[in-house]
Amino acid sequence: MANTLVFGHKNPDTDTIASAIAASYFLNQIGNDTEAVAQGEPNAETQFALDYFKVAAPRVISSADTETVVLVDHNEAAQSVDNLADVTVEGIYDHHKFAFTNATPLYITAKPWGSVATILYYEFKQANIEIPSDIAGLMASAIISDTLLLKSPTTTTYDQPALEALAKIAGLTNYEAYGLDLLKAGTDLSSRSDKELIDGDAKSFEMGGHQFRIGQVNTVDIDDVLARQSGIEAAMVAEGYEDFLFVITDILNSNSKAIYLGDANQAIESAFNATLTNHVIDLPGVVSRKKQVVPPLENQF
Amino acid sequence: MANTLVFGHKNPDTDTIASAIAASYFLNQIGNDTEAVAQGEPNAETQFALDYFKVAAPRVISSADTETVVLVDHNEAAQSVDNLADVTVEGIYDHHKFAFTNATPLYITAKPWGSVATILYYEFKQANIEIPSDIAGLMASAIISDTLLLKSPTTTTYDQPALEALAKIAGLTNYEAYGLDLLKAGTDLSSRSDKELIDGDAKSFEMGGHQFRIGQVNTVDIDDVLARQSGIEAAMVAEGYEDFLFVITDILNSNSKAIYLGDANQAIESAFNATLTNHVIDLPGVVSRKKQVVPPLENQF
Repeated sequence: MANTLVFGHKNPDTDTIASAIAASYFLNQIGNDTEAVAQGEPNAETQFALDYFKVAAPRVISSADTETVVLVDHNEAAQSVDNLADVTVEGIYDHHKFAFTNATPLYITAKPWGSVATILYYEFKQANIEIPSDIAGLMASAIISDTLLLKSPTTTTYDQPALEALAKIAGLTNYEAYGLDLLKAGTDLSSRSDKELIDGDAKSFEMGGHQFRIGQVNTVDIDDVLARQSGIEAAMVAEGYEDFLFVITDILNSNSKAIYLGDANQAIESAFNATLTNHVIDLPGVVSRKKQVVPPLENQF
Repeated sequence: MANTLVFGHKNPDTDTIASAIAASYFLNQIGNDTEAVAQGEPNAETQFALDYFKVAAPRVISSADTETVVLVDHNEAAQSVDNLADVTVEGIYDHHKFAFTNATPLYITAKPWGSVATILYYEFKQANIEIPSDIAGLMASAIISDTLLLKSPTTTTYDQPALEALAKIAGLTNYEAYGLDLLKAGTDLSSRSDKELIDGDAKSFEMGGHQFRIGQVNTVDIDDVLARQSGIEAAMVAEGYEDFLFVITDILNSNSKAIYLGDANQAIESAFNATLTNHVIDLPGVVSRKKQVVPPLENQF
C-alpha cells in the first residue's frame, strides 16, 4: 500500500478525479509513494472521460487509512474525508477559497485558475516531467469540465494554453467536439433519481452561522429539469439542510435557474438581485458556483 | 501608492522583512504594483543586515490601506494587520502551519522549508528573474537567521543550496563569518528593557481554548538573561496573557531554557518531559519555536 493517499472532494467531479490521478503520478515521479483515490464513484461525465482514455476509476475511500494525505481540488474539512483531523496533510493543490487549519508546515500550491488540472499542467512543465497521454486526456477533460469549454467566468489566461497542450499530448485533434460530447455526457439526467440529481455535485458551506448546501447540475434544457420540481423539492427537504440552493445550469447558453428552500428568501433575492417565484430564481449568465453563486451569498450571510 | 502591500508578521524578524522586500520585488518584476511594508521597526539583527547591504527599512504600517495584500512568513490573522478581514488577500508565501480562511480563490506558495527566503529564491530561479545583490544579501541573512546558520532542525535540504547561491550573488565570500556576526547582533540584550525582551519576537497562538503567547530571544549566554528573571516575569505578568512561555535560546550551543507563567504547569512539563523549577524549564537541544515548541504544546492543549 502507498504511504500517502491523494484525493479530491466528496461528490467527485472530473477535475477532482483527474487531478488526484495527475497529482499522484507527478508526486511519484519526484520520489514519493502515493495512490490516487476518490471519495465516491465517478459521475457520468467523468466516467465518459475515463472510458475514452481507458483509465480505471480510482479506488473509493470514505476515510484515510494512511498517516499522510495530499488534498486536491478542496481544502475545507467539510468536503474532505471524515477522519481528516487524525491524519497529516502534507500537501494541497487547489483553486478554491481557503478555510484550512493544521498543526504542521506543509506544501500548498494554490492558484485562482480555472481548474486544478491547469495548475498541475504547469507543475509538470516546470519540473520537466512528461505527462502520459491518458493522464493528459483526463487533465484536458478536467479543464473542459470546470471551465465549460473555456466559457465559464472562472476561465483564466492560463487555462486555454494548458488545454491546448494537453489535448495535443492526448491526441485529441478536435478538443471542442470532444468537449461537447463530454459535457453532454454529464447532462443525461433522465436515469438519475431526484436524490441523485441534488446530491451529485452538492457541497456544504458554512455562511454566517447558516449551514448552506449548494448543488448544481448541468443540462442542455433547464425546463426538462424544472418539470421534475416537486420531486426535486421533496428530495431537498428530505436532506434536512437549513438552506438548500439547487442550481440548474444550461451549458449551451450559459444561463442558470435555481430552486431555493430555506428561511432566507429575502437574502437570496438580495444576493442575486432577482425575485423568487414558486421557489425558483432566475440567474442569467450564471454558470459558476464558485465565482457567481458562493461569493454573493457570502456577502449576504 | 502601490496597489498591493506585501508584509510579514507582527514583531518582524529578518525573514519577515527580507521576504517582504524580495517578494515585492519579484511580484513587480512579473507585472504587479506592490510595496514592501512592515508591521514594526526592524530588530537589531535585521538592522545589522539592512545596514550591511545598504537597504532602507520598509515603511511601518499598523493596518493595510490598499484593497489587496500579499502575506509573507505568516498566514494567521492574529499575526497580521488588524484590518485583515477588510482586505483581499491575493497571495501568501509561507513556511508555517496554516490557519487561514478567506472568501476568494488566491495564490498560495507554502513549503515546509527553513525560511520564506528559501522558497522565494527558488521562485526567482524558476521564473528566471535575476536577484539584485542587496536583496540577495537580505535573503541570505533571512536563511541564516531562521535556520541559525543551517543548524536548526527546521533546516531542509533546500536551504543550504539557496544560502550558498544567494551569498554568491550578494558577494559574501564567507557567509559563516557574516552569519555569526548577524546572529550576535541580535543577541545584545543589555540595551533592551524587560518588556522589549519578551515582546521582541513574541507570537500569539490559540491552543485548545488557551490564549498562548510564546516569545523567544537568542543569546550567547542563557544565564545572562536569567539574571533578569524577576524583571522579565513582572513584564510577562503585565502583558496579561493566560499563558506565556518565554524561550531563551543559546545559539552557539543549540540549547534553550524557558520561563513559563500560567496555570498549566503540568501540561507544560508533560509537553517537554521536564520539570519546572522556579518557573524555569530546561529544553536541551531546542532552538526552533515552530518545530520544537509549538507542536508539543499543541499536542497537550
